[in-house]
Amino acid sequence: MTIKSKLYEIIFESDTKAGKLFDLILLVVIVLSILLVMLESVPSIENKYHSLLKFLEWGITLIFSLEYCLRIWIVSKPKVYIFSFYGIIDFLSILPSYLGLFFVGTHGFMVIRALRLLRVFRILKLNRYMNEGAIIIKALKQSRIKISVFLFAVLTMVVIIGTLMYLIEGAENGFTSIPRGIYWAIVTLTTVGYGDISPSTALGQLIASFVMIAGYAIIAVPTGIVTAELSKPNKALPSGKVCGNCLSEGHNLDDQYCRFCGAKLL
Amino acid sequence: MTIKSKLYEIIFESDTKAGKLFDLILLVVIVLSILLVMLESVPSIENKYHSLLKFLEWGITLIFSLEYCLRIWIVSKPKVYIFSFYGIIDFLSILPSYLGLFFVGTHGFMVIRALRLLRVFRILKLNRYMNEGAIIIKALKQSRIKISVFLFAVLTMVVIIGTLMYLIEGAENGFTSIPRGIYWAIVTLTTVGYGDISPSTALGQLIASFVMIAGYAIIAVPTGIVTAELSKPNKALPSGKVCGNCLSEGHNLDDQYCRFCGAKLL
Amino acid sequence: MTIKSKLYEIIFESDTKAGKLFDLILLVVIVLSILLVMLESVPSIENKYHSLLKFLEWGITLIFSLEYCLRIWIVSKPKVYIFSFYGIIDFLSILPSYLGLFFVGTHGFMVIRALRLLRVFRILKLNRYMNEGAIIIKALKQSRIKISVFLFAVLTMVVIIGTLMYLIEGAENGFTSIPRGIYWAIVTLTTVGYGDISPSTALGQLIASFVMIAGYAIIAVPTGIVTAELSKPNKALPSGKVCGNCLSEGHNLDDQYCRFCGAKLL
Amino acid sequence: MTIKSKLYEIIFESDTKAGKLFDLILLVVIVLSILLVMLESVPSIENKYHSLLKFLEWGITLIFSLEYCLRIWIVSKPKVYIFSFYGIIDFLSILPSYLGLFFVGTHGFMVIRALRLLRVFRILKLNRYMNEGAIIIKALKQSRIKISVFLFAVLTMVVIIGTLMYLIEGAENGFTSIPRGIYWAIVTLTTVGYGDISPSTALGQLIASFVMIAGYAIIAVPTGIVTAELSKPNKALPSGKVCGNCLSEGHNLDDQYCRFCGAKLL
Repeated sequence: MTIKSKLYEIIFESDTKAGKLFDLILLVVIVLSILLVMLESVPSIENKYHSLLKFLEWGITLIFSLEYCLRIWIVSKPKVYIFSFYGIIDFLSILPSYLGLFFVGTHGFMVIRALRLLRVFRILKLNRYMNEGAIIIKALKQSRIKISVFLFAVLTMVVIIGTLMYLIEGAENGFTSIPRGIYWAIVTLTTVGYGDISPSTALGQLIASFVMIAGYAIIAVPTGIVTAELSKPNKALPSGKVCGNCLSEGHNLDDQYCRFCGAKLL
Repeated sequence: MTIKSKLYEIIFESDTKAGKLFDLILLVVIVLSILLVMLESVPSIENKYHSLLKFLEWGITLIFSLEYCLRIWIVSKPKVYIFSFYGIIDFLSILPSYLGLFFVGTHGFMVIRALRLLRVFRILKLNRYMNEGAIIIKALKQSRIKISVFLFAVLTMVVIIGTLMYLIEGAENGFTSIPRGIYWAIVTLTTVGYGDISPSTALGQLIASFVMIAGYAIIAVPTGIVTAELSKPNKALPSGKVCGNCLSEGHNLDDQYCRFCGAKLL
Repeated sequence: MTIKSKLYEIIFESDTKAGKLFDLILLVVIVLSILLVMLESVPSIENKYHSLLKFLEWGITLIFSLEYCLRIWIVSKPKVYIFSFYGIIDFLSILPSYLGLFFVGTHGFMVIRALRLLRVFRILKLNRYMNEGAIIIKALKQSRIKISVFLFAVLTMVVIIGTLMYLIEGAENGFTSIPRGIYWAIVTLTTVGYGDISPSTALGQLIASFVMIAGYAIIAVPTGIVTAELSKPNKALPSGKVCGNCLSEGHNLDDQYCRFCGAKLL
Repeated sequence: MTIKSKLYEIIFESDTKAGKLFDLILLVVIVLSILLVMLESVPSIENKYHSLLKFLEWGITLIFSLEYCLRIWIVSKPKVYIFSFYGIIDFLSILPSYLGLFFVGTHGFMVIRALRLLRVFRILKLNRYMNEGAIIIKALKQSRIKISVFLFAVLTMVVIIGTLMYLIEGAENGFTSIPRGIYWAIVTLTTVGYGDISPSTALGQLIASFVMIAGYAIIAVPTGIVTAELSKPNKALPSGKVCGNCLSEGHNLDDQYCRFCGAKLL
């Protein structure tokens, strides 16, 4: 086993102990790098610890660069890795630091490192988390058409309500344009309610009341869709034994005998 | 096949390729016309691109007018189309432009074009979206009585709470009238919470706390109603076994005998 | 049949045509009386239409007084009616008008008339609304213990979080006392979010973030409780036929044969 | 039976009448002590009733101290109690009063007494509340992996959205740092919406609209998870048929044969 294949196992796979440890350390470094970008954006901290933060940032950039080069070196088809989803994220997460040497204002893009957090899903792939996550994603996928229809209906509502409020309230009450009215309608219908724009006329408040109560009832729809999907007995996953005698399905994994014909389940 | 019947197929139906294309183009023009109305309402954009926006608006108005005349010309019973739901919307969506030549202030009504978006449902009628949408609508219909009872209870609560707060807080804290108190109660119970009116007295904040916690628990009711409805096994869709004797559908997978004719299910 | 017993049928019962009509008219008058109280509380309307509103108010008060006297006259046991739930509400809804002759400030209490709206449930008792309402109330009743436990947990959380924020943010950021901190915690946890008090320190905002995400997850609990209850097959209602042969239950009302033994269902 | 063992029964257990009474009185005193801490934090009340509040506080502190000493005296292994969860809370709830004699600023910590409220669960342990609470906790436990995956996804979203808004809106619109942007993203996604920070630019409001609609759809996920869990037939509770052969429980009402031993179910 060459060093290269050994490194491959450690860096790209996570079945071995060393591979798991590598992934865990990487995850910690990613989290640290994100915290660092956050701290750098806080003026009071940035002013006080400027040199330390800069030092740490370059440290992490070098670690990420080294890791990126290693990955390119050890994979058999570097191009496939470079243009893969994770390859592009890995590249983009080191780019801003180097660009920052020549340009200003690229610093904020360093937050793209947050996308590296998605790597956590690879690390978790070996255990229950992935299965449970898959159930959620499957439920969302299966309800995507229902949710699209729902979102389309909501968007149409929001356009009509937003324009209505623009006509009723007018610019003097903060509804300066139709897009702003639509923004208000979304803020209200989703029950966020910032209060940066709120109706002042009696008619506007009456319509707002209807919108709010509608929003209250409407929130039931996506919840109902996802819940109904999650509550369905999951047929796709190996859901229990099949009776060898009567071929009935749907037995629990701890069932010993067929519920329908009484034959022993294998 | 005359031109008229050919045009009928293209404009009114959407089974043929040409018909689908027509519907798609129409949809894009509708979306563009709505975006245009929005942009015209933004003062800064309107001032800068006044002539261009006006030009585009008249272009779209002419397209819609042409389409409207075509539809009247090719249907066998024009009156039925003109007074149908879509016929009225089609008419109303071109009216404001022409009225704008004689009156001022009718411009905002052009947003009625947003209602033409509903046409998307006709285009989608051939595919899965319609079925899934139908399931949502069916669930909402079947739960309409429960939701009415719920909304009635909420409205009674809101009237009583709104008045109570008007009595407690009074005009000096923004609760200038009972309708305004009710408006506050709706804003609070639906968890929107603009903050344009909020209780200032200790007693008012105590009652507000109860209202908020009640709103938190109450939101469970419509969600529960819709979810329960959506979770019900859908009898209308062909599911489970089909009876070989009477060809009835909808049997559960674990049913042994036909529920309708008593024949043994295979 | 005496006039008294005839009036009894009309006023107290709602099975006859005249009884239904009486109830409907009463309901309309109640709604009008509530609208009147609301309008009187709006300063601009009150100033303009003072005499008209006063006239209408006394008209409605007289109608309600007459109805109250009639009810006392025609029931066989007046005391039972007077001290019944509806009797007390009927009395309280005419009291403020008369008290207003001698005292000031009693006017707002006239809103107690809103409680008369509950009478709508009596009118609805003959139709489906009552059944569906009963299902909701039953589901809420059966989940009342779960909801109590949940609310108790929420209240404990809210007390602890509110105090914590009082200690962290202090009076200078609007958290002037522990009750005010608790009020903020409720406003935040229920996702109402007025914004009249909001954290200003970094630590306060961090804790607020946790509270909000917790509130986001916690809202799932009451919804889940009520939904689970509403989704349960309702055993109490006549839920289908019982097989006379194998005594199996749970057949649908439209089933003709037993699903388990194939015997004809009666 | 010695006094010590009798006291043990009263103070530590709650099966006897005296034990229940003791627990109930203790609970009332705990609630009173919390109300007292709250009232002391309100400047206007504190100024007016300073002596009375101080007197009551010392009274409750003495009661708690006495109870704490009693508990240590009567248990057979004092160390186990002292370092148990409840032992530590009991100690911490009397500490601030005594510390207040020597230091200032420790007063607020007295709110730790709120944790003593958890004792209510011990009192409730004998009745239905505990069972129902256990069902909720079980459902939350079984969905903890799904909820963790969900929260992780939400946190990643929030970090990316918060940074994006920091870059777009900038310090002049209140997004002074990335953590502040993340705080805004949480406030928005959870539909709390204080309005202390809200987007001012057109692009910012567009993104905010997407975040709000996403938050609206996302709230369906935890609700769906918990509801699906709570809706599952509870295997732990005796439901359905019991096998006459192996006495196993939890068979469905329509099962014909025991799932565990294959005996025909009656």
